[in-house]
Amino acid sequence: MADDGAARLPGLPEIETAARRLAGQAVATPLLSSPLLDARIGARILVKAESLQRTGSFKFRGALNTLLSLSPDARKRGVVAFSSGNHAQGVAAAAQLLKIPATIVMPADAPAIKTANTRAYGATIVPYDRHRDSREAIADSIARREGATLVPPFDDVRIIAGQGTVGLELARQATALGIALDVVIAPCSGGGLVGGIALALAALSPATRVYAAEPESLDDLRRSLAAGLRIANEAAARSICDSLLAPMPGVLPFAIARRHLAGSLTVGDDDVRRAMAAAFADLKLVLEPGGAAALAAILSGKLDCAGKTVAVIASGGNVDRELFAAALACAAPAS
Amino acid sequence: MADDGAARLPGLPEIETAARRLAGQAVATPLLSSPLLDARIGARILVKAESLQRTGSFKFRGALNTLLSLSPDARKRGVVAFSSGNHAQGVAAAAQLLKIPATIVMPADAPAIKTANTRAYGATIVPYDRHRDSREAIADSIARREGATLVPPFDDVRIIAGQGTVGLELARQATALGIALDVVIAPCSGGGLVGGIALALAALSPATRVYAAEPESLDDLRRSLAAGLRIANEAAARSICDSLLAPMPGVLPFAIARRHLAGSLTVGDDDVRRAMAAAFADLKLVLEPGGAAALAAILSGKLDCAGKTVAVIASGGNVDRELFAAALACAAPAS
Repeated sequence: MADDGAARLPGLPEIETAARRLAGQAVATPLLSSPLLDARIGARILVKAESLQRTGSFKFRGALNTLLSLSPDARKRGVVAFSSGNHAQGVAAAAQLLKIPATIVMPADAPAIKTANTRAYGATIVPYDRHRDSREAIADSIARREGATLVPPFDDVRIIAGQGTVGLELARQATALGIALDVVIAPCSGGGLVGGIALALAALSPATRVYAAEPESLDDLRRSLAAGLRIANEAAARSICDSLLAPMPGVLPFAIARRHLAGSLTVGDDDVRRAMAAAFADLKLVLEPGGAAALAAILSGKLDCAGKTVAVIASGGNVDRELFAAALACAAPAS
Repeated sequence: MADDGAARLPGLPEIETAARRLAGQAVATPLLSSPLLDARIGARILVKAESLQRTGSFKFRGALNTLLSLSPDARKRGVVAFSSGNHAQGVAAAAQLLKIPATIVMPADAPAIKTANTRAYGATIVPYDRHRDSREAIADSIARREGATLVPPFDDVRIIAGQGTVGLELARQATALGIALDVVIAPCSGGGLVGGIALALAALSPATRVYAAEPESLDDLRRSLAAGLRIANEAAARSICDSLLAPMPGVLPFAIARRHLAGSLTVGDDDVRRAMAAAFADLKLVLEPGGAAALAAILSGKLDCAGKTVAVIASGGNVDRELFAAALACAAPAS
């Protein structure tokens, strides 16, 4: 039997270790709700606002957990990462905190706010062409030249354990509120976030069904789960969700998904715009398109959750103001 | 000596009682920060996000505290309130929770989202003309006719104690983080919020200097403090801050302000727009104009806070999407 990564998956102990490492540095993000939203959907919706996380997305968790695991010598040689923006900011901010030099390989067409913030956190940015260059090759070459450590975006035990702290926190918050979670939905690109959450909940709340939410034009996880092996997206596929463009599920996240996910829900660009508008109106949250994908799945009825208690992860809020205003304008929520 | 209300002011015990009453119903709102914002301002800024409070503003706290203090008989006869929108939603949502009939007298030109949400919480809305009718007279007549209890927006011990739970929570959060607060700034209309916070901090963190933030066109508190007596705004005064239009400081809030406030900082409409844009970009928060007034005071340099630790209250997020998009468009933050 081929190595599907299962032997290397982190468990609850690794996630708990990550949570202890992150305490006091990462925001314990609030679990928000809106009676008006609940009434419209006919379910109890809890929104875990990772958009309020340091750097504006959950990515800070996995990045800081990984950097804290490096030796003093490795820290001195620095880190390198490739990212469309949120992992970039997460790594840059974690590196700045630990005084580690960071180089980030970013697409030239990344949202301006993500590039500007990554630079503001003190990282060196190396741009590349999303449709021509190999970001992995560029990052590898920098890592080799400088002896720097590559910080992968999702296919890594330390990253998955760090993102899994979202699930750990969520389970503890629900318990404190006396709430049993029927369903949890998290946006999915490479699968580090939903994978880490699924591992945490499998241990802490095994009756909860965990779903991924991904763009319908980049439904690699859905198709991979159906086929039983990792399938890539079309290279030409486009989506408004700039943070959900990974070419295919990671090896470790896919191993987790096969064991622990109830499925993957797909959302269109207009579903996402409407979810951004609903988050604005009902929750007062700024969500980026990818960060609104899980909420979009519920709002657009991709899962029958009548009478259920559903937690959705609002994974990020790094969005340029023009795109945000346009989403509000073309997608006023039904009221 | 004239009665200035001081004998009737609530103290820390009343605020602690309110906090116990609100536990599990009001959101313990997060204290957020942004290293990028701190670097731009040259101070440590903590943002208490009451925009994430139930109903999208702090007003739910005082409303629920007041309604919970009513007798069963008074609850049956219902409540009435007048408000430009946030107190309206706070009272309506608290009344819905306790199954109390609520009538809200609202200006015909209140933001659409505030009117729609107040109605969605089950309240009966009575519109009035802000420049022609007396909302107090309309509300009084309804209260007399129906035997309903008037829930005042700010000049009330129970309301001030409820809003004061923001200060209690803030002080506890700062202590948990090991942070000493040099300055706290809260938006001010009638003064219930900043008054309640000032009372809580006078007891729990007496070295903290507490300031109000108000529109420069409606600087009644600043002028009242200078004169030593309550002075009204010009009836014709206008501001983008639709939630900060009270005609003059309340009796009790002014008594608190004279004893406990370090002063009132005034902000212009453009300061407020820039603060809304900064909250969007750096904190991922949707703030309404009035909710951004305290952040605006800091961002526009109305107080020298170099090297200090400053908490600002982001008091609400109920803003129509057109106004929000316009604020972002005309006020991109410096970066």
